[in-house]
Amino acid sequence: MLVYGRNVAKEILKSDKKIEKIIIHEDFNDKDIISLIENRKITLITMNKKDFSRFDKFSHQGIILYIEDFKYSKLEDFMFRDNSKVVILDHLEDPHNLGAIIRTCEAAGIDGIIIPKDRSVSVNSTVMKTSAGALENVKIAMVTNLNQAIKKLKENGFWIVGTDMENSVDYREIDYSGKIALVIGSEGFGMSESIRKSCDFIARIPMNGKINSLNASVAAGIMIYEVIRSNK
Amino acid sequence: MLVYGRNVAKEILKSDKKIEKIIIHEDFNDKDIISLIENRKITLITMNKKDFSRFDKFSHQGIILYIEDFKYSKLEDFMFRDNSKVVILDHLEDPHNLGAIIRTCEAAGIDGIIIPKDRSVSVNSTVMKTSAGALENVKIAMVTNLNQAIKKLKENGFWIVGTDMENSVDYREIDYSGKIALVIGSEGFGMSESIRKSCDFIARIPMNGKINSLNASVAAGIMIYEVIRSNK
Repeated sequence: MLVYGRNVAKEILKSDKKIEKIIIHEDFNDKDIISLIENRKITLITMNKKDFSRFDKFSHQGIILYIEDFKYSKLEDFMFRDNSKVVILDHLEDPHNLGAIIRTCEAAGIDGIIIPKDRSVSVNSTVMKTSAGALENVKIAMVTNLNQAIKKLKENGFWIVGTDMENSVDYREIDYSGKIALVIGSEGFGMSESIRKSCDFIARIPMNGKINSLNASVAAGIMIYEVIRSNK
Repeated sequence: MLVYGRNVAKEILKSDKKIEKIIIHEDFNDKDIISLIENRKITLITMNKKDFSRFDKFSHQGIILYIEDFKYSKLEDFMFRDNSKVVILDHLEDPHNLGAIIRTCEAAGIDGIIIPKDRSVSVNSTVMKTSAGALENVKIAMVTNLNQAIKKLKENGFWIVGTDMENSVDYREIDYSGKIALVIGSEGFGMSESIRKSCDFIARIPMNGKINSLNASVAAGIMIYEVIRSNK
């Protein structure tokens, strides 16, 4: 996986993450980062302006890292914990939203995130950058079939809480104790109909305006902090 | 102000917002939008590919609108209401965050937003696009001096609630009844020291991870929904 930018570079260089190689622009002169690179045995390639321009569609700040791909977890890695709280992302599309949600899950102490394999954003370099380091501390399972995953969660004692405006109850009225799987719908289409049917509760964030559309990562943040609210 | 993109164009064409002129790409063929334009007396310019390319840094989808600048409100427009809830953005930098916060304020029914004139993002085309139409229904006051504005709010019975990790109390413990002004710090630096001193409470969102950094608009969303929580 290719990642870029000074902040991400610093984080990764300070972690024990495997770095395959680093490419810097000939004018790159961040002394902290160069000293971090020198302290590790990493293939470093300095590139002239012309050659480096192939990376110009990324906001690279003069540094590109090739690192090992993100290692996904399995459902079983976080399904068996008492009071486990997990977040299911039902075909989210925007990597910035995924990155922001990963940050929220890390801060809130969510046990795991579940994403579907197809028609969904997965962990790419934009997600890595947006998640601001939180990615390293969050378990993400990528599953072939969300409905099957939900079935498995139910068999293991999870309550499934969806989010939608219709046929729903105020999110503040739901009991989130025990094992909870919170479903966040996609930006454009919300939750899939088949997943809606699997939900034990549908939660609604009350809206008092005319437009009434929350950004997906903001709505997820409000819901996630509600789910962990009782953990004082 | 220049705005762009099909969704924004549709919204504006359906509103009573004054449109100075519209420029479309010669290949633009969205029939809904073209029929909306024809229903209003608007200067329409069709541009060939080469001339239109000057707009290519925007994700324009073939349509550019020139509209009147956003009309800011005054503090006095929302300061006198009983139980008024306002949000102060202490030198926010990212237009996507401002757009997302405007959406949250609209949905939550916040009475007004206060931003400083200098060293802060203001309402530009990116904010307009990100706010997904919510901008039209939210009052935003732009003030020369945030400390002076806070002083005025205090004189009018507002409690000032800051957000920070240090010297703070759990955000769930604070009484948000009455007139409340919630201060959201900037992405990089948090709240200014002078504003921190004016706060009656500093609220902390509990963090259970290692990285513990929430996206600014997500943190704002969690806090804003907490402030209006008692309004059932």
